[in-house]
Amino acid sequence: MQAFAPRNLLYAQSGGVTAVINASAAAVIRAARDARSAGGQVGKVYAAADGILGVLAETLFDTDTLDDVALAHLAAAPGGAFGACRFDLDRPEDNPAQYDRVFEVFAAHGIGYFLYNGGNGSMDTVVKLSRAASARGYPLVCVGVPKTIDNDLVGTDCCPGFGSAAKYLACAMREAGLDVASMASPTGRIFVVETMGRNVGWLAASTALGKYQDDDPPHLILLPEVPWDEAAVAARVDACVRKLGFCAITVAEGLRDAQGRLIAEIAHDNAGHVQLGGAGRWVAQRLASLLGVKQHVAVPDYLQRAAGHLRSATDLAQAEAAGRAAVEQALAGQTATMPAVRREADEPYRWSVFAAPLEPIANQERAFPEEFLSADRMQLSEAGIRYLRPLIAGEVAPAYVDGLPDYRVPRLVPVARKLASYPG
Amino acid sequence: MQAFAPRNLLYAQSGGVTAVINASAAAVIRAARDARSAGGQVGKVYAAADGILGVLAETLFDTDTLDDVALAHLAAAPGGAFGACRFDLDRPEDNPAQYDRVFEVFAAHGIGYFLYNGGNGSMDTVVKLSRAASARGYPLVCVGVPKTIDNDLVGTDCCPGFGSAAKYLACAMREAGLDVASMASPTGRIFVVETMGRNVGWLAASTALGKYQDDDPPHLILLPEVPWDEAAVAARVDACVRKLGFCAITVAEGLRDAQGRLIAEIAHDNAGHVQLGGAGRWVAQRLASLLGVKQHVAVPDYLQRAAGHLRSATDLAQAEAAGRAAVEQALAGQTATMPAVRREADEPYRWSVFAAPLEPIANQERAFPEEFLSADRMQLSEAGIRYLRPLIAGEVAPAYVDGLPDYRVPRLVPVARKLASYPG
Repeated sequence: MQAFAPRNLLYAQSGGVTAVINASAAAVIRAARDARSAGGQVGKVYAAADGILGVLAETLFDTDTLDDVALAHLAAAPGGAFGACRFDLDRPEDNPAQYDRVFEVFAAHGIGYFLYNGGNGSMDTVVKLSRAASARGYPLVCVGVPKTIDNDLVGTDCCPGFGSAAKYLACAMREAGLDVASMASPTGRIFVVETMGRNVGWLAASTALGKYQDDDPPHLILLPEVPWDEAAVAARVDACVRKLGFCAITVAEGLRDAQGRLIAEIAHDNAGHVQLGGAGRWVAQRLASLLGVKQHVAVPDYLQRAAGHLRSATDLAQAEAAGRAAVEQALAGQTATMPAVRREADEPYRWSVFAAPLEPIANQERAFPEEFLSADRMQLSEAGIRYLRPLIAGEVAPAYVDGLPDYRVPRLVPVARKLASYPG
Repeated sequence: MQAFAPRNLLYAQSGGVTAVINASAAAVIRAARDARSAGGQVGKVYAAADGILGVLAETLFDTDTLDDVALAHLAAAPGGAFGACRFDLDRPEDNPAQYDRVFEVFAAHGIGYFLYNGGNGSMDTVVKLSRAASARGYPLVCVGVPKTIDNDLVGTDCCPGFGSAAKYLACAMREAGLDVASMASPTGRIFVVETMGRNVGWLAASTALGKYQDDDPPHLILLPEVPWDEAAVAARVDACVRKLGFCAITVAEGLRDAQGRLIAEIAHDNAGHVQLGGAGRWVAQRLASLLGVKQHVAVPDYLQRAAGHLRSATDLAQAEAAGRAAVEQALAGQTATMPAVRREADEPYRWSVFAAPLEPIANQERAFPEEFLSADRMQLSEAGIRYLRPLIAGEVAPAYVDGLPDYRVPRLVPVARKLASYPG
């Protein structure tokens, strides 16, 4: 259908952002520039505002305005510098006009490569666009750049973004655990850290990495994969409080009861506000009431995925490798793939990157494996710790100015629009 | 009454712990050892378990079991390594037996110096014990070591513990602010960080340090000193959301309405659970409901006072200086004093330590000054920023092992008891 060979590359960020997604962005931009300098078939390197929404709106940035210093600042800053969205394309058969628009924008700006940096939903978008391009005869190579703090992408050993969030949470539980231990008392204290994780327990599980001895926090970890069992949990917490004077508990926001109902929804039923974020407080108040002890709850919320001051060097390296590899895959014409991490060895940890086809893995969700749990399913097994440990390894301190990390988000100016606004 | 000259020193930790209270502890122990080595009038250096409760229980540790490596580990670890308590002595006239016990324990272990590391309540304990010793003719020098993340001690420019918590919160708002900005959307988002601070707004105010331009988070700061004004706040948030697509708000846990009622209590009235920790969620849900936008809430809770990985070098230096100066004041016989910080200059920041008499300042609370607020009382004035900025300056990265800070809490063995148990 198209009579030209588009060579420009378009990058966009989608879904919840991470501490290292901008490092992937900077790696994509650098790799594309390198390929261009080497005479490769890359033209302009664009970034869309707000993910696929920016494509529909034709809000594109020319990343050539970013010099090396700006790219270094981009790579260091948490959050998504180009803006992300929680928006999925409709199915092509349901909304062909939406796809018409996407390909009009692509054609207008000579986009031959589309790199989408996101999680499960974004990988589905990559597959949809790849298929649609093929159906339309538009010469597009569409590649995913993996990113999710939830670590729930299938087909990769781990996901960029997860290691840094895991490091933050493990550090938080270790530090707050020392605090709570200081305040232990015969009357007892419960301390809950509520982690993100709507459906999978990877983040909650990572808090176990600061536990070196049996009596160290966290004393229980409550995952979405393990239904809330009030009697079992209360008995364990009671024993812990009697022994230590306190009990530190990790609760995933997606904790569910035996019927599969979200605890957070139960927590909010009375007030009529059904919004995730209440499982930790509900568990703490329930246990405190059952056991007659005091409770405190920490909800790090976005802090756990934005902690640029405490990034995992391993995670950062994988985020950058994913960005570079995605450009290589794009230039090699490997549409509907994403760079995935293969674990070569646990200790010393070695990993490599390969191109994983997205068709079989998009829109799936990798639950926390049963074999990574202890027999009582309230702690991790050695295998679980062995898997998680290397992902938080290594520190990458940011530059500091006046006591705070020196984050500078690049100023971006959209390129001139060529099309009518959408929806028209 | 006592026929001897006790020379042993007893140190204890009280109230909520901090990221640097153990650094004060290590400084006390080192300074006391140095004085002993120099032929000063110091004997054993003890620490009590769980603050004054450990004195009553006669649970004392001999800190000579800690070598230099253990002291370095002590200084690096957040939390209170000896245990802290939330317990105040009764008034002597109401419970003379309690004071009899304290002085029995002091006499049995030859305690001539008592150093109490805490906040307002602890300083009151120092005054009470100093008076009681005098009334009994027991030769005790009783000195306070200031410590509070709330920064609410009167008579000192700032308090050890505050600067590190302020740095953590300012960094958290800066980082999460970048995250939320990525997710900005026409439908709008509200993000709330709830800080500690039951009665005073110092911690909430510190989140302003990551704000460099008008549109940077936090867009509003709601302090306990400024009554909740729903119309004014909602108008401001609405304008911010319309302009930026999001609004980041700091809410102190002790936010109150115009009648002085805690918002957290209003928040919990329905459920019948009155426990601080709900002001942030209440504000977020109220505004989201009024303005029809989405909301997220972070409640760092203990994480903000336990973040040993992000301590302020300034705060750490002041915590250590307070420990050393407290020993000097004790040996100089300056009972009922505490080392206080005098600000010599804002920029470059210079400070010194002096002995402040506790009688006029114990049990008072220093509110966030009106002149540190902007005219609308939802932001800081330049004077407020100028005051806060140097307190978070400087980084002190901990050692890391396997991706986490290498915190090692000293193993402590109580010394043999000499008295009957208490209460008998």
